[in-house]
Amino acid sequence: MPRHRCLVNGEARADLDVSDRGLAYGDGLFETIAIRAGRPCCWLAHLDRLARGAVRLGLPVPSPARLKQEATRLGDGVECGILKIILTRGPAARGYRPPPEPKPTRILMLTEQSPPSIEARISDRAARVRVCQTRLGINSQLAGLKHLNRLEQVLARSEWADASADEGLMLDAEGRLVCGTMSNLFLIDEDGVLQTPLIDRCGVAGTARARVLDDARAAGLEVRERRLALTDVVRARGAFLTNAVIGIWPIRTVEEHAFELSRLPWTLLERVHARLLQPELEW
Amino acid sequence: MPRHRCLVNGEARADLDVSDRGLAYGDGLFETIAIRAGRPCCWLAHLDRLARGAVRLGLPVPSPARLKQEATRLGDGVECGILKIILTRGPAARGYRPPPEPKPTRILMLTEQSPPSIEARISDRAARVRVCQTRLGINSQLAGLKHLNRLEQVLARSEWADASADEGLMLDAEGRLVCGTMSNLFLIDEDGVLQTPLIDRCGVAGTARARVLDDARAAGLEVRERRLALTDVVRARGAFLTNAVIGIWPIRTVEEHAFELSRLPWTLLERVHARLLQPELEW
Repeated sequence: MPRHRCLVNGEARADLDVSDRGLAYGDGLFETIAIRAGRPCCWLAHLDRLARGAVRLGLPVPSPARLKQEATRLGDGVECGILKIILTRGPAARGYRPPPEPKPTRILMLTEQSPPSIEARISDRAARVRVCQTRLGINSQLAGLKHLNRLEQVLARSEWADASADEGLMLDAEGRLVCGTMSNLFLIDEDGVLQTPLIDRCGVAGTARARVLDDARAAGLEVRERRLALTDVVRARGAFLTNAVIGIWPIRTVEEHAFELSRLPWTLLERVHARLLQPELEW
Repeated sequence: MPRHRCLVNGEARADLDVSDRGLAYGDGLFETIAIRAGRPCCWLAHLDRLARGAVRLGLPVPSPARLKQEATRLGDGVECGILKIILTRGPAARGYRPPPEPKPTRILMLTEQSPPSIEARISDRAARVRVCQTRLGINSQLAGLKHLNRLEQVLARSEWADASADEGLMLDAEGRLVCGTMSNLFLIDEDGVLQTPLIDRCGVAGTARARVLDDARAAGLEVRERRLALTDVVRARGAFLTNAVIGIWPIRTVEEHAFELSRLPWTLLERVHARLLQPELEW
């Protein structure tokens, strides 16, 4: 069993009041952060997304200094792991209406991992991907947020229990391609242009997705965020997924369609992957 | 402060493991039940919806006998109150994939209320209703379920903090009228037909809604479940909301549009209201 460590509002405990709005309504946000050498990877990107999400939900923005101090406390002595931060609107009386002065709940949970399985070469662990039946509802107010309403992802991930697939692609209610159950999607089209679905109507604005977009543009690669369909996948030269903990995750197959892995822009992907899983030195 | 009583998996406690999937993903269901004379109202309807929701989410259906025993224990000596039942997929390791053998968490929370405010004549407390900007995403897989993913309702109810409105109507992503933030909607159209929005794409299948539909049909009233728009509201003779704890809730105004309350089918509504808030004798 992996070792867990947990802080709830700075206290070493692992329980929550049942009146917490995070439980009652999914009224909150979370971040999932890779830990290497006891330090978080892409810390500022996660903190920034958490802060922007808090503003959009009308939650007080948590203190970066306090989160850093707590993350440091949990990460101490941990070579490799995953830090999950949950921020909720806190305990409250019944009813959807948010309390005028919420007392947010801040949870940090660390799960240790064994390094070797993580650090395998990215080309060696290309994903077999299926297409999920479960659709994503369209709601531009919630799009992009890493909020706690994740039943669509749960139902999508419930569609297979065997090892036949590593990840599932999800379409929105209108049939557009959005993301994987726990990842963002990129395609390299016939002209070598990097494409990724817009996440203005559903889906999560992944920190790894943002890093890929930035680094690809900096490398002079043409990049387009647009509406994509499943037909774009089968026409693409290559495809990969991104996730803050996995990093770059090349796609080997989508259902019956196989990709030639050699056609991915490996130099760029290896570099971005290394950056995604590099512990912050100054944070 | 109202008195709270709480049972978690049958134990008198009020805390939850932070690894519970109810918190992490809103992976669960809830029921909100009126208590009168220490006994729940419409118990079987709530139990039935909970069981059907559990089947749809792939959760083990909780034992009715155990729920009854726990509800009895909490309700003992309580004249008037609200019982909330939360059922989650329980604690689990990270990841959307549901554990093959979940250990569900069952939470019962009772909040006492003072009877007078509740038992006022329904015509005396007609609602002023606004129209919310927050939309409901369309997802037929989740439609009807009283699940724990309620951020849309939270955002909708955040749109006003003053006493200018009692409830807000919500439209779906395509602009169709669906429900109130915490209620279902009924209209009496120009021909005296009772109409209510379909809840096949979003919204909750309210127990009070079902009771109104059944009793109206039994009374010989014509009833239609269909797609409705805001224009249907202003054309209607009258309108009312339903909620398991409030009962029948007539609408006085929707934004600037005022209804003549006298045009509602009061005999039927008073009868249904009484049934909704009548404690079960045999349960």
